[in-house]
Amino acid sequence: MSTRDLILEMARKAVEAKSHLRSLGRTQKDMALKEMAELLWQERDFLFSENQKDIESAKREGLPLPMIGRLRMDEKVLRSMVDGILEVASLPDPVGEITRMWRRPNGLLVGRMRIPLGVIGFIYESRPNVTVDAASLCLKSGNAVILKGGSEAIHSNLALEKVISKALEKAQVPKGAIQVIPTTDREAVEVLLGLDEYIDLIIPRGGEGLIRFVAENSKIPVLKHYKGVCHVYVDEFADLEMAYEICMNAKVQRPEVCNAMETLLVHRAVAEEFLPEMIKRYRKKGVEIRGCEETRAIVPDVVPATEEDWSTEYLDLILSVKVVKNLKEALAHIERYGSKHTDTIVTKDHKRAMRFLEGVDSSVVLVNASTRFNDGFQLGLGAEIGISTTKLHAFGPMGLEELTTTKFVVFGDGQLRE
Amino acid sequence: MSTRDLILEMARKAVEAKSHLRSLGRTQKDMALKEMAELLWQERDFLFSENQKDIESAKREGLPLPMIGRLRMDEKVLRSMVDGILEVASLPDPVGEITRMWRRPNGLLVGRMRIPLGVIGFIYESRPNVTVDAASLCLKSGNAVILKGGSEAIHSNLALEKVISKALEKAQVPKGAIQVIPTTDREAVEVLLGLDEYIDLIIPRGGEGLIRFVAENSKIPVLKHYKGVCHVYVDEFADLEMAYEICMNAKVQRPEVCNAMETLLVHRAVAEEFLPEMIKRYRKKGVEIRGCEETRAIVPDVVPATEEDWSTEYLDLILSVKVVKNLKEALAHIERYGSKHTDTIVTKDHKRAMRFLEGVDSSVVLVNASTRFNDGFQLGLGAEIGISTTKLHAFGPMGLEELTTTKFVVFGDGQLRE
Repeated sequence: MSTRDLILEMARKAVEAKSHLRSLGRTQKDMALKEMAELLWQERDFLFSENQKDIESAKREGLPLPMIGRLRMDEKVLRSMVDGILEVASLPDPVGEITRMWRRPNGLLVGRMRIPLGVIGFIYESRPNVTVDAASLCLKSGNAVILKGGSEAIHSNLALEKVISKALEKAQVPKGAIQVIPTTDREAVEVLLGLDEYIDLIIPRGGEGLIRFVAENSKIPVLKHYKGVCHVYVDEFADLEMAYEICMNAKVQRPEVCNAMETLLVHRAVAEEFLPEMIKRYRKKGVEIRGCEETRAIVPDVVPATEEDWSTEYLDLILSVKVVKNLKEALAHIERYGSKHTDTIVTKDHKRAMRFLEGVDSSVVLVNASTRFNDGFQLGLGAEIGISTTKLHAFGPMGLEELTTTKFVVFGDGQLRE
Repeated sequence: MSTRDLILEMARKAVEAKSHLRSLGRTQKDMALKEMAELLWQERDFLFSENQKDIESAKREGLPLPMIGRLRMDEKVLRSMVDGILEVASLPDPVGEITRMWRRPNGLLVGRMRIPLGVIGFIYESRPNVTVDAASLCLKSGNAVILKGGSEAIHSNLALEKVISKALEKAQVPKGAIQVIPTTDREAVEVLLGLDEYIDLIIPRGGEGLIRFVAENSKIPVLKHYKGVCHVYVDEFADLEMAYEICMNAKVQRPEVCNAMETLLVHRAVAEEFLPEMIKRYRKKGVEIRGCEETRAIVPDVVPATEEDWSTEYLDLILSVKVVKNLKEALAHIERYGSKHTDTIVTKDHKRAMRFLEGVDSSVVLVNASTRFNDGFQLGLGAEIGISTTKLHAFGPMGLEELTTTKFVVFGDGQLRE
């Protein structure tokens, strides 16, 4: 079968499954999730031996060690995958919820009911745990999903699908609900992105290259997650002890992720007191500092930041630092160089906090807390399928609700339009 | 200036205005709207004389009379445009609303705050009142808008923009907030649809041809409104007197609009009683009936419906009629031939009503009420900028809220991620 026909057949199966999934009750969905968790653990030897094939071919092809590490499935990794599924099972069902209901003057009772989106195409890189995450979140929210993982993980992903299929069958959920594309052919992605009559949403997860490719080639709406150039602004009225802690946490707790801080903005009035101590602490943790002229005047041995630094997502122990003359300049800097991801103000002043909160056009804006909290679990969504940095449909971390939409439901007793 | 440069300059102005609009308070937005209303009425002679140019050129080009009628602006049309603006001014400001707020175990207070989308491109046909509608809804929701109306209405639209600009100036709102593309060049639309770095959302409003063109050529997300193939299903347990009224209202009250009924489904158990009387009533109103075999066995002089009829949006006094053996067959018919727009069940049976409500995958699903209620005003949204028949971001009628998104706002007191 040609790649085109293969993908088309998968899309048709997903659409078939979709109508069935829409009306599945919570009991049956949770039963399927629990079957998945149980079978994945039970079949772990099979999963590990298939995973081993990916590891070996990654080694043969000389993939970097950290990448091979992320590829590996062992008991610990599988355990956390299984726990993740059980956690999704324990979350309330978003489908069928009536979010609001109101009465019209003519007696009509109008409400908005949460329903699944339909069929989701999920395109991602590397780690096989994403396969299980995405599968369980889509199932719980009543969506069918077509998964396209990285070619390095093809054996692992197909093995996971095989076990998941068995679980679906046991729970009498159609297999079209969760499918893994069985080829590493790039054409598969291109075909998938053209099937706007079958697929309702594409979610890419991975590096900027993957996301741009998907966004540019898709006829289907895409929930994009571009880079995170996150800021902490230390205000004139900041509690400096708190500022040291927040700035440290935001930069070094996990520098390689999108919600880590990349640029520190400091109000001129506190720069001389704050920066020498802060930079001293950063250096102890191995953070390289690239500063503006004013920063360098205060701490002389800092590397000069270039224009490019202000819009760079380092994903590493590097930080750009700029002294600003006031809140307004901080807001303007974030507006110009930020990526609408996550930004924090540290201040004791209520008015400044509120101005920052309202003035920053990012998906998560915080007062006196680390940027690292931009995360579906941390913010209390119960789950996370990605972070959207564009505003349509979802903005910020996406949980189960963001995999649904609402329709209007109307109860009447014979109302006519005049 | 080339068309490309012209559109690019407009987009840049819109982006500039966007940052300003985001933080405008309700008072200033409403003041600008009231200025608009006042000045449009004051400058009516200028508007009518510019409108006359469009009317004359439409006559010269031999446009159909109903189209020329829709183009015309007189005191009555202008009055209702002005009233529309004042109504928008009286609506609550969606921006800044915190839709929910919750406390996390670590003390973080997390909420979702409504914010504008940014810059909206609005592409539409014919009627100049849409220019004013879209302008006032976008302004109220804090978005900048670039308007591209039909070439037949170019003089009217530019005249409206001229007056609107004066009003914006008086209210100290940047002119980039509301701009009309001053050319009828088709290239303008193509350029506009490619500016995904400047424009956040495209809303097309008009015939299916326009909407398909926009959807296929846009790099920017599009809120689509495809055709409305709306159904009324008269159940075995319907109150037949109510059914006659609802079916009549849904079909003939305004047959040319998208929420009018196009297909009537009747449960077999009541078909013999219901159809002869219903069809008799329809014929009195000049409705042409196209029926399935069973319908024709009951009412012999009905034209046979072809396969094509089931998916046709007549927008006219034509109705296709099908007898179904049960609710399940009705649901399957709507799933296959419907357009996810609006569908109604007429029944006295609670279980059937709820099964229909949950089983139909359309933007508005009604029990015992006319399909004609799929409308932002009728459902209580206070306004309507269009109806979305795709699920992402908005599904069904779109009011002010649908022109916004939410960001997460987080209040902490030094929380760090562990």
